[in-house]
Parts: sequence; C-alpha cells; structure tokens
Amino acid sequence: MKITIIGATGMAGSALVAEALRRCHTVTALARSAEKLAQLPANPQLTTKVQDAFALTPEELGTADVVIDAFATAPSLAFQHVDLATNLVAKLRTTTTPRLVFILGAGSLRTGDDHHLFVTDIAKDPNAASFLSIPQNQLKELNFLRDVDNVNWVGVSPAADFHPGEATPFLLGNNELLFNADHQSETSAGTMAVAILDEIEQPQHQQTRFTVANK
Amino acid sequence: MKITIIGATGMAGSALVAEALRRCHTVTALARSAEKLAQLPANPQLTTKVQDAFALTPEELGTADVVIDAFATAPSLAFQHVDLATNLVAKLRTTTTPRLVFILGAGSLRTGDDHHLFVTDIAKDPNAASFLSIPQNQLKELNFLRDVDNVNWVGVSPAADFHPGEATPFLLGNNELLFNADHQSETSAGTMAVAILDEIEQPQHQQTRFTVANK
Repeated sequence: MKITIIGATGMAGSALVAEALRRCHTVTALARSAEKLAQLPANPQLTTKVQDAFALTPEELGTADVVIDAFATAPSLAFQHVDLATNLVAKLRTTTTPRLVFILGAGSLRTGDDHHLFVTDIAKDPNAASFLSIPQNQLKELNFLRDVDNVNWVGVSPAADFHPGEATPFLLGNNELLFNADHQSETSAGTMAVAILDEIEQPQHQQTRFTVANK
Repeated sequence: MKITIIGATGMAGSALVAEALRRCHTVTALARSAEKLAQLPANPQLTTKVQDAFALTPEELGTADVVIDAFATAPSLAFQHVDLATNLVAKLRTTTTPRLVFILGAGSLRTGDDHHLFVTDIAKDPNAASFLSIPQNQLKELNFLRDVDNVNWVGVSPAADFHPGEATPFLLGNNELLFNADHQSETSAGTMAVAILDEIEQPQHQQTRFTVANK
C-alpha cells in the first residue's frame, strides 16, 4: 500500500517508516526538517519530502491509501495536535480513502477501579507540568475524532511509558490503560509500529481508538 | 467596533447586520453570493464581500474586533458547521482578538427533568429527518469548542423554534432549553441579534455557550 507518514522523523514516525518498508509498502515520509529526513535509511520504496502537514491538499492526501499522523510538537504548541486532526478531517470529509491513523497519547485511556482518565494521574506528577499540555491536547484530539463519522479514521494509544525500542510481543486493548504481567505499562516505538502496520493490513478497528502495550 | 459577519445574508446574519449597523458598529458582511449581498441595505458603515469563510486568513480575521459565525449550509454538508469552527479556531490560537461568536442550534441544549439533550427529541420527529444533521453537527461544534481554552470564543443557542422576526423582550439562560410563560420555546432572528450585540458590547460569557429566547 501507499502509506504517507506525517512526522516521519520522530520516535514513532521513524519506527513506522522502518516497519512499513520492511513489509514492502510504498512510503512517503513527511517532516519539517530536511536534515532529519536525510537521516532516514535510503530505500527504493521510500520518498521523503519537507512538508508542512497543515498545508497538505486533499489531492496530496488522496494519493495515499493510508496517512499516519505521527506529528509531534513542543508543549507550548500542543494545541496543534488538535488542529492537525481537525485540518485533516476537514479535507477528507465524506471520503473513505485515505484511511487516517492518529497516534494518540496514553492520557485519554481509562485506569483504576473507577476508570478515571489516566491524564488526571499524569497531572498529579509535578515532573509532568512541563509536558502536561501534550496528553491534555491528545485527549481533546480524541474527543474531536469520536464525533467524526464520515471519515475513515482510527486512533492508537501507547501505554503509560512510550519509549524508543524494538518491537516485542504485545497486548491490545480498547480504552483501558494496559499493564503487562510484571505490572509495567510501556510501549516501545517498534511495538507501536508493528501494531499499526497490522491494523493497516488487516483493519480491526473503525472510527475508534485502540491501545497497544509491550507484553 | 469592527464586526465581521460570516453568513451575513442568512436569517440570523442579515438580522445581525441590521442590528450592528443600528448600533453604529463598522460591519463587514461576508457571504458566498454576490446577489444576496447586494440585497443588504446600503450603509456607509457596511462593507460587503464575497468570501469563502474557510479561506479567511488570520490577518483578515485579525482586522475585526469580533467575528460572528452565522454560517448556514445544506443538511448534506452539515459537517461544515464543525469544520468552519475548527478552521477559525486553528487560525486564532493563542489570540484574544478577534472574539469569535458562534451561533449554535438548540439541539445541544438540555431539557426535561432528566436534562437530556434536546437533539434527541428532534431526532424522534419523523419530519426532522431531512435536517437532523444540522443540530447534530452543531452539537459536535459545541463539543469541540468546549475543549478550546486559548481562543476568545462564545456560543449562542436559540430556543427550539428559530425563525425570522423582529426583536422582542427576551429570556437568557445557559444550557437549558428556554420556554416563555406561554410554554413557547422560540427565538426570532431579531432577538438573537440583539442578544449577540449586547454580549459583544458588554461581555458576560467567556468560552462558554448561552441561550436566548423570546419572552
């Protein structure tokens, strides 16, 4: 398939580029930095392009079967997570192709006996103040997407600790924060990439969000 | 003040143009149809412009103190109510001027002893099937706006029956559908215009929605 990846040079994005190429898909890697794009391993199936994701046209989006939003930004601009989602959705209303895949944070997952939003736990950690706007806005992004019924979208949340690393066996869930048998809640970028490529090749979720964690 | 009105030739928009001019504001009336714009009464304080509201630039928006979204569209394109709100918000993030005023439907108001959404009552009326998408999407629009905390916005909902007509004395509320002493739930476009101009001149609501009904 033709897969366009927004934010292709970030932690999630670069793992997605690698996994998509490993599975012989045709990948267009978009990012704002030419320098970072040049660091992606050369591959005949890979095209790189310096691109402001907000300026993608419906026609450009329509050349792909799947567009993955792996956009990341500074906490002071966290609202752009919401704005890029609304921007992409507005350009693809009443279409079924491309499928949009949004990487969301763990903050919008539920946890505990009372199924509270995990972002409320994050907010209690003083060390999280500097980046709290990111999970807060990724929750808003999901709130927006849940009202979208005429675009082909799916969202994916990692577990509490989303970090670089190779793929491992993994657990899948829907709206509850996942923990493995050792009570760890973590997802490596490699695992996220495998779970997303599995979902792209064999869609199991439609206009909803699922979650993946390292087993 | 400088007031830009999107959808200035519609039922709500044309009443807003008249009321704003009556109060000696400087009005820019935007609409898609030059023919309909030409039907607005000439006034030295009024500028008309054929304009796709989705293509307004941040700079164009920034020339106004207040931008009123009185956009209306066909039920088949009702999602554009959401998309125009997300578009305007994205262009005005982290600003306080212009203030954005959104005319929302009555469907997002609560009613009855159980405070259910009025849109669920609308949905039970077989005659509403042809336009149900409008209140449904105006509810989604409000859902989106309620997550926006870094743009200066306010929303206004009419009562159940929103119709042309002169301003009357009126009732104000927040999230509950309003009825007058005769158990009528109605808002004339003139009343809506007066309530909005009052709110513009003397802001009482911030990043929230209020409602107005004919007394």
